Amino acid sequence: MKILLKFLGVLLMLVVVSGHAAEMMPASSHGIAYPVGWQNWPTIAVSHRTDNKTIRTILGNDIAFKAARSGNTKPWPDGAILGKVVWKDTQLKDWPTATAPGKFVHAEFMFKDSKKYSDSYGWGWARWVGLEQKPFEKGKQVCITCHIPVKNRDWVFTDPASLP
Amino acid sequence: MKILLKFLGVLLMLVVVSGHAAEMMPASSHGIAYPVGWQNWPTIAVSHRTDNKTIRTILGNDIAFKAARSGNTKPWPDGAILGKVVWKDTQLKDWPTATAPGKFVHAEFMFKDSKKYSDSYGWGWARWVGLEQKPFEKGKQVCITCHIPVKNRDWVFTDPASLP
Repeated sequence: MKILLKFLGVLLMLVVVSGHAAEMMPASSHGIAYPVGWQNWPTIAVSHRTDNKTIRTILGNDIAFKAARSGNTKPWPDGAILGKVVWKDTQLKDWPTATAPGKFVHAEFMFKDSKKYSDSYGWGWARWVGLEQKPFEKGKQVCITCHIPVKNRDWVFTDPASLP
Repeated sequence: MKILLKFLGVLLMLVVVSGHAAEMMPASSHGIAYPVGWQNWPTIAVSHRTDNKTIRTILGNDIAFKAARSGNTKPWPDGAILGKVVWKDTQLKDWPTATAPGKFVHAEFMFKDSKKYSDSYGWGWARWVGLEQKPFEKGKQVCITCHIPVKNRDWVFTDPASLP
């Protein structure tokens, strides 16, 4: 009986722990796993879109950052992940001509793997929406269509920012 | 004689190595040492100033990033370093309503140490200009004067961006 109780205790603990892990890790988008830890990635570039009033940062994983720093982006190397983090515009109260991040919109990612994603121009396309990071599941074609103007730039709009 | 030549060889090597190190490490600004490695720091926020047509990212060292993530920024903790990286605006050729980084202008930093910098409101103020990272030496008062509008916000203009 004591052993059974101990077993049930351990089982309960496992359920709780795995539940927490599941809670922390959003589900996949277009079959692509969530890139845990992207909030810590270094900066590749930034941008501001006046057409839809959003301000963005473009982050990169280690492979992407090294490629950007060394100019090795035509094409981007396999393993590179680019993340675009998007906020609605807000104006700084204390500097009214400055736009800063307001409401968080989404984080969207391009995963370079010329073999694995050969049917979508060498990139995996994924997005997680809102602070709850709900997977975007409307199909990668939505992403690709928007990126057609830069199909000759390895599908990437923004050049890596110049850095010392 | 052989020992003397060996000694001179080692001496020459030391001079060359230290010369390279000096070349890689910009001199201090306002007496503050260059924060080596800031290009790898994570993002605190971004901003776009239409008054002087510059787009910026605001990076943080580990202490600053953790403070931002946990909402511990009123005041920012000692040891926090905030870096503002500034580029002139450029328009994306393939998305004309988007502004992106053009020419690199400078990287400027606020170093929080309430004791060490008690004579400048708890912050050390420094800037390195251009891709050559030339130390700015016109005096911290130049920085402080511009930040007066946010003296009641621990001297920081931009709130940390909302992140999942």
